[in-house]
Amino acid sequence: MAADIAEQPAGYARLLSAEHAGAIARVAAAVARRRPRHVVFTARGTSDHAALYGAYLTEIRLGLPAGLASPSAVTVYGARPDLSDALVVGVSQSGGSPDLTEVLRAAREAGALTLAVTNDPDSPLAQTAELGVDIAAGHERAVAATKTYTAELLALLLLVEGIRAGDGVLPADQRAALERLPELAEHTLADPTPAQLAPRYRFAGQLVTTGRGYAYPTAREAALKLMETSYLPALAFSGADLLHGPLAMTDPDVPVLAVVGSGPGGRSMGEVLPRLGERRADVVVVGSAQVEGVTRMAVPEVDERYAPLLDILPLQRLALALALARGEDPDAPRGLKKVTATM
Amino acid sequence: MAADIAEQPAGYARLLSAEHAGAIARVAAAVARRRPRHVVFTARGTSDHAALYGAYLTEIRLGLPAGLASPSAVTVYGARPDLSDALVVGVSQSGGSPDLTEVLRAAREAGALTLAVTNDPDSPLAQTAELGVDIAAGHERAVAATKTYTAELLALLLLVEGIRAGDGVLPADQRAALERLPELAEHTLADPTPAQLAPRYRFAGQLVTTGRGYAYPTAREAALKLMETSYLPALAFSGADLLHGPLAMTDPDVPVLAVVGSGPGGRSMGEVLPRLGERRADVVVVGSAQVEGVTRMAVPEVDERYAPLLDILPLQRLALALALARGEDPDAPRGLKKVTATM
Repeated sequence: MAADIAEQPAGYARLLSAEHAGAIARVAAAVARRRPRHVVFTARGTSDHAALYGAYLTEIRLGLPAGLASPSAVTVYGARPDLSDALVVGVSQSGGSPDLTEVLRAAREAGALTLAVTNDPDSPLAQTAELGVDIAAGHERAVAATKTYTAELLALLLLVEGIRAGDGVLPADQRAALERLPELAEHTLADPTPAQLAPRYRFAGQLVTTGRGYAYPTAREAALKLMETSYLPALAFSGADLLHGPLAMTDPDVPVLAVVGSGPGGRSMGEVLPRLGERRADVVVVGSAQVEGVTRMAVPEVDERYAPLLDILPLQRLALALALARGEDPDAPRGLKKVTATM
Repeated sequence: MAADIAEQPAGYARLLSAEHAGAIARVAAAVARRRPRHVVFTARGTSDHAALYGAYLTEIRLGLPAGLASPSAVTVYGARPDLSDALVVGVSQSGGSPDLTEVLRAAREAGALTLAVTNDPDSPLAQTAELGVDIAAGHERAVAATKTYTAELLALLLLVEGIRAGDGVLPADQRAALERLPELAEHTLADPTPAQLAPRYRFAGQLVTTGRGYAYPTAREAALKLMETSYLPALAFSGADLLHGPLAMTDPDVPVLAVVGSGPGGRSMGEVLPRLGERRADVVVVGSAQVEGVTRMAVPEVDERYAPLLDILPLQRLALALALARGEDPDAPRGLKKVTATM
């Protein structure tokens, strides 16, 4: 897991190379020509969080309605929604989930433009979809996904921005901003704070993660990583939902990891942090926001829609360090396999 | 909270009366005439779980793509997706959430057909939407929503089935099946099992809820109720997602509440329960499925799409009994207000 985490800056550079970014640009141009009216994402587990990021990007950057489909409506109940105006995107590291493959097959039969985002272009999911994006993350050794998650994020970012551009080719200033990401990721991974913070949670019985907008998928993925590797019940809430009920749960005994950037999503957390303070929650802030009087895992400031590529890195390292501190083996989580076959 | 819970059978009967069901039928007919191509739900907290049920119904019963929109894309990032073919449904007990009202206002400006499902026809949300459904649940005393949740479920069911019928008028056999619900709900609420089970969780440090398809919103809502009233970290997973990672967390110390009915969603849990058994999780089954050798909170068997109206009842009562057993006041959860204003 440590090796997978460390490979992420190189993974960003690889995906941004002419070979891979060019392939994604061609797919983006093909999607743009077909002019979908709305976008449906389907995924499970870690990839579901990447899909959620893709849905935010689609709504905000393309002005297209986007949603996450539940595979069970199709696979369990035989629903066959009319998808003739839709782009249906399946996101899966392995591309091996039978239920996602079935959703894409049904969507293609229903007239949707279908696209698979996977780490294996020969996988059933990739073979079933009309279009495919290879996240090119290389073999992932650990069961807990890290480098394939961030590669999915970056691939979806390049795809959506390429669709926005029309011909798949990003403006020069945006390319320049993206090309700084490998170095910024390297810088973020060099921060010793996550390993120093791990002992704080050695005896935590639960944990809450929160974030809004682009930071919400990061909060969800951080919670899943902590559950998979440390078996720590970690509850993820959007900042707004947290105020709608689960806030009652936070007290000085409940640690909160709040993902707070410097953009609109981070600023909208301004109403959440004081409420957590009133409840004397134990808050650690992750991200680029300059929050006073709070322990932080600082991350370099970038445009908020690129921040998920950096904010998750200290959280992955925290999950790894905490698993080790609790005497667990993060490379062999109990009860889990790398490819999960659900129907 | 006990009084709100006890009123649910009467609430079902009221909503099924000619006055209220007739009003929903007229709204359903109006929606059917406009022929939306897809449906976007927006909601928060408990109502988000009713919206999720509405999305399953829409995909399975209407064959229309349905998704849950994140309000923050609109309210935080100013996204203005093209919604000219969409029905946008806001679900909110109070109808007072500024962010949902803003989403419906933006959707209406973008050409969507808009519909508010609320307990207050004079609320800002209801006033903003073109169409409105009154869930007619009466004043809810407790902060933790119970009777307004099930009234939202039943209103959405009547709405979707009315759209499917075209003119809003349900077939006679379906009306007969629905009219049995108040009595079946009364019967379900008379079962002493939830109060007897509460001591089992007196010292639980966490809890997992799970279900698939129509039972998944029930699992989500049960988890939220337990968190709001007993401050017990309760993690809800679809049965399929549970196998994708969080299964690692389940062990003999982790109680699992599995919502398992007798229809396709319940049968698809057949692969999940044995995996939980392998991990020696402490499983209690809620619903109509006849599962051997497991503690059950039994619920009368109905068509699976009506089951959410019954399955949640013992879970609400369990949340109430557990809060009392843990010395908490379920009527005054710490840190919460009835109407949560988030932007």
